[in-house]
Amino acid sequence: MDEFGLIAALAKRLPKPGEDVLLGIGDDAAVFRTSTAPFVVTTDTMVEGVHFLPTTITDYNLGYKALAVSVSDVAAMGGRPRFAVVSLAIPAAWDKARLEQVYDGLRENTERFGCDVIGGDVVSTSGPLVITTTVIGEAENPIPRSGAKPGDILFVTGNLGGSSAGLQVMQEVTPASGIAQARLVERHQRPEPRVGIGTLCAKFGVHALNDVSDGLASELHEISAASGVRCVIEADQVPLMPEVKELARGLHRDALDYALYGGEDFELVGAASTRAFASLLATASAMQVPVTRIGRCDAGDGVVMRRPNGHLEVLEPKGYNHFKRVDTRSGRA
Amino acid sequence: MDEFGLIAALAKRLPKPGEDVLLGIGDDAAVFRTSTAPFVVTTDTMVEGVHFLPTTITDYNLGYKALAVSVSDVAAMGGRPRFAVVSLAIPAAWDKARLEQVYDGLRENTERFGCDVIGGDVVSTSGPLVITTTVIGEAENPIPRSGAKPGDILFVTGNLGGSSAGLQVMQEVTPASGIAQARLVERHQRPEPRVGIGTLCAKFGVHALNDVSDGLASELHEISAASGVRCVIEADQVPLMPEVKELARGLHRDALDYALYGGEDFELVGAASTRAFASLLATASAMQVPVTRIGRCDAGDGVVMRRPNGHLEVLEPKGYNHFKRVDTRSGRA
Repeated sequence: MDEFGLIAALAKRLPKPGEDVLLGIGDDAAVFRTSTAPFVVTTDTMVEGVHFLPTTITDYNLGYKALAVSVSDVAAMGGRPRFAVVSLAIPAAWDKARLEQVYDGLRENTERFGCDVIGGDVVSTSGPLVITTTVIGEAENPIPRSGAKPGDILFVTGNLGGSSAGLQVMQEVTPASGIAQARLVERHQRPEPRVGIGTLCAKFGVHALNDVSDGLASELHEISAASGVRCVIEADQVPLMPEVKELARGLHRDALDYALYGGEDFELVGAASTRAFASLLATASAMQVPVTRIGRCDAGDGVVMRRPNGHLEVLEPKGYNHFKRVDTRSGRA
Repeated sequence: MDEFGLIAALAKRLPKPGEDVLLGIGDDAAVFRTSTAPFVVTTDTMVEGVHFLPTTITDYNLGYKALAVSVSDVAAMGGRPRFAVVSLAIPAAWDKARLEQVYDGLRENTERFGCDVIGGDVVSTSGPLVITTTVIGEAENPIPRSGAKPGDILFVTGNLGGSSAGLQVMQEVTPASGIAQARLVERHQRPEPRVGIGTLCAKFGVHALNDVSDGLASELHEISAASGVRCVIEADQVPLMPEVKELARGLHRDALDYALYGGEDFELVGAASTRAFASLLATASAMQVPVTRIGRCDAGDGVVMRRPNGHLEVLEPKGYNHFKRVDTRSGRA
């Protein structure tokens, strides 16, 4: 299997690109045209043994997730994904059939989000599989994480904690029911980037937006630090996946920990004026996407959480840090 | 050293981006605007032990070269590089000081080619260092490799063979002089992407263009296959680095092998009408960049080389294939 043969085989797994792709896979570089909106570009790298293991994700879902992670970053800018390039560093143990599965998963994602894969690179490595996705998107009004203001409402989309709980049920024996385990695993392996809500956030002038890749506590710290505000959230307002609550109950753990420190939920967390939030809530409800107020921004700094008994906890900026934990928690995605 | 601290330390090595960068490193995605020209995007991955070794390149030049390789792909489309994202999968043995050297090398290249690094990712790996660069460029008239026509002149820029000869002198004892060795090593470690000539090629309507990453024979085969033409080159017209000739003489080898099969010279090879070639030649001469006619395109297929005695050799599509050779020639860059 040589480089050119492999590229041709993998490219065949992808759908025909749209008409804005003037030249796709196969030349020195791909060529595309776009509208005149500003562009966003983001890149993410996943390493076998650090971000995933063959025991925690199927090859198909690895392809799906690798692209979803970058699409989620575009959504977190209020943008619409358009084009992607994918690079693979491939160990000898990964054969062509497995790589084709990865590309079939990529394909599902490209079709769902209208994001054409227009180029890439494949090389060998003596180490683990490394997959790098770069996604280019358009954004009329990009939303940074630095725009939050005192008085803003803090909100999240969907519900949280499912991804890290899903990883746990694959790696340990837990008391969760079979159906709960299946739903949690699905959440871990197949995150749903919130592209539609992200573009609504841009339309309504949401002030700051992040995707929840490293846990809610870490994302709020990023917004707090970049915007110069204090984030105050209500513990009983943080929306959790019901299956996370079931798992946490059986394990006698605090279900909130999965949301605050688990990461990889790829929901959106943002700060918006009362008015913008009301517009977002109304439109998202019509789209049947949950958007929940979880707190507010104050003057000050740091991140605190109020428990139902009124007790204020300072939340540390810990979250899942792939870089730091590789030696101690290899395989934790 | 955590992920966020490392990103901040590495970002500090880079120059302030230009005014078209609306939001650089540090958010979910970078934001840029551009003119309305079509875009080109390319990505390249380099793996320690496959594409380079600490004994064959300095950390500084690794950074320089990683970006140069992608900039060269943009040049080979007739484009102008604008923005880059860089991803690193980092083994524990690479400390912050070494990574900062890599970024200093990147910086030199970004400044030389006006290509802002606007984002990236850093993750850990249990395997070798993996560096992936994605470069986005603008191209008014992108030049594919599929446009060559029978009757076209085949040409190359600069002179060839230096990169693979440079790798050889670092890995073996050779009879080349000290000064020749130094020049060859420089060529291997610090390729010069031909951005200026690439944009001239676009201006003059060159029909097909590639950069010489896998050896001249391999690049001509790509043009031949994509364009449906036969490439015929003259052995005595292929421009070689004088130091390559010196090395080959001492080793009793054919100097042409370095150009045909060595790769990584990152010169441009193209096919142009007689008229376009004349314009290119005149302008390139004024810029003191060598452009050399090496042959022509005929109806037919395949690649042949005529020796000075008139003998025609069929050139195989072999060239340096990183993917294929990893097991047998680990470290060959």
